Amino acid sequence: MIRVTVWNEYIHEQKYEGIRKVYPKGIHGCIAEFLEKDENITVQCATLDMSEHGLTEEVLANTDVLIWWGHCCHEGVSDEVVERVKKYVLQGMGLIALHSAHHSKIMKSLLGTSLNLKWHHGDKEKLICVNPSHPIAAGVSEQIILEEEEMYGEYFDIPKPDDVVFLGWFASGEVFRSGCTFTRGRGKIFYFQPGHEEYPIYYMTEIQKIITNAVYWATPVNYLSKPYECKEAKWE
Amino acid sequence: MIRVTVWNEYIHEQKYEGIRKVYPKGIHGCIAEFLEKDENITVQCATLDMSEHGLTEEVLANTDVLIWWGHCCHEGVSDEVVERVKKYVLQGMGLIALHSAHHSKIMKSLLGTSLNLKWHHGDKEKLICVNPSHPIAAGVSEQIILEEEEMYGEYFDIPKPDDVVFLGWFASGEVFRSGCTFTRGRGKIFYFQPGHEEYPIYYMTEIQKIITNAVYWATPVNYLSKPYECKEAKWE
Amino acid sequence: MIRVTVWNEYIHEQKYEGIRKVYPKGIHGCIAEFLEKDENITVQCATLDMSEHGLTEEVLANTDVLIWWGHCCHEGVSDEVVERVKKYVLQGMGLIALHSAHHSKIMKSLLGTSLNLKWHHGDKEKLICVNPSHPIAAGVSEQIILEEEEMYGEYFDIPKPDDVVFLGWFASGEVFRSGCTFTRGRGKIFYFQPGHEEYPIYYMTEIQKIITNAVYWATPVNYLSKPYECKEAKWE
Amino acid sequence: MIRVTVWNEYIHEQKYEGIRKVYPKGIHGCIAEFLEKDENITVQCATLDMSEHGLTEEVLANTDVLIWWGHCCHEGVSDEVVERVKKYVLQGMGLIALHSAHHSKIMKSLLGTSLNLKWHHGDKEKLICVNPSHPIAAGVSEQIILEEEEMYGEYFDIPKPDDVVFLGWFASGEVFRSGCTFTRGRGKIFYFQPGHEEYPIYYMTEIQKIITNAVYWATPVNYLSKPYECKEAKWE
Repeated sequence: MIRVTVWNEYIHEQKYEGIRKVYPKGIHGCIAEFLEKDENITVQCATLDMSEHGLTEEVLANTDVLIWWGHCCHEGVSDEVVERVKKYVLQGMGLIALHSAHHSKIMKSLLGTSLNLKWHHGDKEKLICVNPSHPIAAGVSEQIILEEEEMYGEYFDIPKPDDVVFLGWFASGEVFRSGCTFTRGRGKIFYFQPGHEEYPIYYMTEIQKIITNAVYWATPVNYLSKPYECKEAKWE
Repeated sequence: MIRVTVWNEYIHEQKYEGIRKVYPKGIHGCIAEFLEKDENITVQCATLDMSEHGLTEEVLANTDVLIWWGHCCHEGVSDEVVERVKKYVLQGMGLIALHSAHHSKIMKSLLGTSLNLKWHHGDKEKLICVNPSHPIAAGVSEQIILEEEEMYGEYFDIPKPDDVVFLGWFASGEVFRSGCTFTRGRGKIFYFQPGHEEYPIYYMTEIQKIITNAVYWATPVNYLSKPYECKEAKWE
Repeated sequence: MIRVTVWNEYIHEQKYEGIRKVYPKGIHGCIAEFLEKDENITVQCATLDMSEHGLTEEVLANTDVLIWWGHCCHEGVSDEVVERVKKYVLQGMGLIALHSAHHSKIMKSLLGTSLNLKWHHGDKEKLICVNPSHPIAAGVSEQIILEEEEMYGEYFDIPKPDDVVFLGWFASGEVFRSGCTFTRGRGKIFYFQPGHEEYPIYYMTEIQKIITNAVYWATPVNYLSKPYECKEAKWE
Repeated sequence: MIRVTVWNEYIHEQKYEGIRKVYPKGIHGCIAEFLEKDENITVQCATLDMSEHGLTEEVLANTDVLIWWGHCCHEGVSDEVVERVKKYVLQGMGLIALHSAHHSKIMKSLLGTSLNLKWHHGDKEKLICVNPSHPIAAGVSEQIILEEEEMYGEYFDIPKPDDVVFLGWFASGEVFRSGCTFTRGRGKIFYFQPGHEEYPIYYMTEIQKIITNAVYWATPVNYLSKPYECKEAKWE
């Protein structure tokens, strides 16, 4: 079984009725629901308001892949928890950062850049696969239309991705590296741009397929039970 | 001095009056003209109809960077000349393949894939820089608008590029990896999509800047005077 | 089930008694034997002397991953069969090229370089994992000692690999990118240097683990039933 | 002119007579001396004990490439200065991290991993070029022997480098990615392993050539005069 923890700051859904209508169980609830339909995946959720944001040593030690959604409260996540999540990523825990999670502390800490970009609301996006043999693209259409989505545009200040799986085309005249992979330590990271909270993006079958594929892909290979340390090598 | 050879199949400009009006001296003539304005660059031209297509051993041995434009007559280039060009690329000669040169024999031979893609005429393109610190992007705007251009769209069947410098956004809803680098042997390769023969693309200052930058970037480093051979290594 | 075809030129084992003693059933026989122990893998073999070298349209259309071992008779493989294998790789068939298969026609055609290198016999190698979270490294030791192996040394004339999974250290003072991945079209390619015919390398459990992992990794994702073609894209 | 700042923690050379004999003017003094022989380079030095470690806003705003050597006092560098250096790297300032600078705060912050590795003293290294057409390898021998060097061995916990230019072979049976490039924001980063303080490595002509090449390579392209910010993109 792949053990997934879905983390959501869970603010917008409680604060704004319009967003609550889109995600009555929270974005995490929606994601958990579709992932749990996969017989190889078990899911737990964690939110900002929980003790230690729900990301205790015990939770992380039992998480294969962590999914992260946050937007307005990145600064509300404690540095201690960020360091803890980072430790587990370097040991091999997968990390899937969705949409505005590009600006989360954990992503900035792992990637080392600003992750700044251009943006505006109310655009139309086409998600186009440029890496069709990547496991994250398995069974996914060449093009997926998102009738309404927040535009994220280049230049996107990220390090060179290991792979760019999807490019985003926006009607307003922008492009974006919308699906990118990175590796840090033994941890596999997938950044996936779609998912503005006002639109029902995570209910789309194709989007669910991509996130599910990413969960499989990010499952640890050669997971370390403790951090990789320097060691003095013996002479042979 | 950087010694550039501009190769053009030079068919459309002779056959079609409309295209001749755009490029009265041929596409090669236009490219040679703007490159020669750079005091560190000297240019010679070669065309399909010349003996050995103008790409003799002597010409190639004295070429630092070869620029290639071809479209309708890829099959008219002899295999012997293709092998010869390939030999020099592997020794370090730079290669800049423009627009429909993606389908040239030399590109297929060096990259190993079909280089197939989607296309249609009469689109509008925005060329967007996604690698602003790459030498080929030096002094180039973040976005360049090509009011009329042939659309080349994904999936573009290329190996993973060393770097993607420019992405193309097309009004019709397509994206493209419009400026890509590769290395084969010691040779640096830049594929650059803009330049359909019906539109005066190569007269645009920004496009000229990119091609000039690419010439500098593709100039050989540690050029080999003969092919790299296997050798039995001594025991030390 | 993953359908593997193991191709071997099968010359040395028939010609030289010393090598026949190491691989009495041929190198292909040894590889087939350990792969067949995996319940998700079925194996067939093909050799140079068979009609169409055993690589007919039917065989390739029913192959998920092709393993290739060749050394002295690369030129004996017909160009027609090489083109056919290439077509299937571009459609998504995996390819694992072992040891001296770096110089096979199919590898040269897919990678576009000379694949030349330095070499000598009778060295000692340590295979060192530099990409421990890559699926090909799953469950594999950090270092594997090959007491006797032919040395392959840098510079190895390959395009930049997608990933370097293993580096080889040789007692004589050489290093090598001993385990490299590439993608061409939809086909995943793994080049793996160990396996000189005089030494019982393919009987080593760790080496078998790596090749088995590579089979899983190279299994097609989004396999195409026919070649990817250019198409004129509709306006939407 | 390329404006280089050489930063050195400058502890060992003051504390230990043996090391002072090797580098009587400090490691920074040795590096500054050979760089200044290049007519396109001007050099200033900065050390840990200076106010703000010598890395004020003014110094950094006038630095094209920062060279960093540190070993025992990484923790002595203030977080404020690290953030300032990072800001300038993201804006385009080049960074060359030498030897034990892999563990500097600035490298950890930019790369996001532990940069842990294996090590021991008193080994023999061969530096082997695996990317001969990279600008950093221009005019450099295929192999450089370092008769005495501290061994740094794999697994080296770094993100996938943009390019691996040099591999290190060690007599004790280890290998290392000894010369690696990265990009963060607009800043080019070169990590170069040779240079343990007890051995006169930076007096070697070949090593000086590599560092000088790296200075040229890391010089900013499209330098930003202030940090790249998010912006709301206009609709066109």
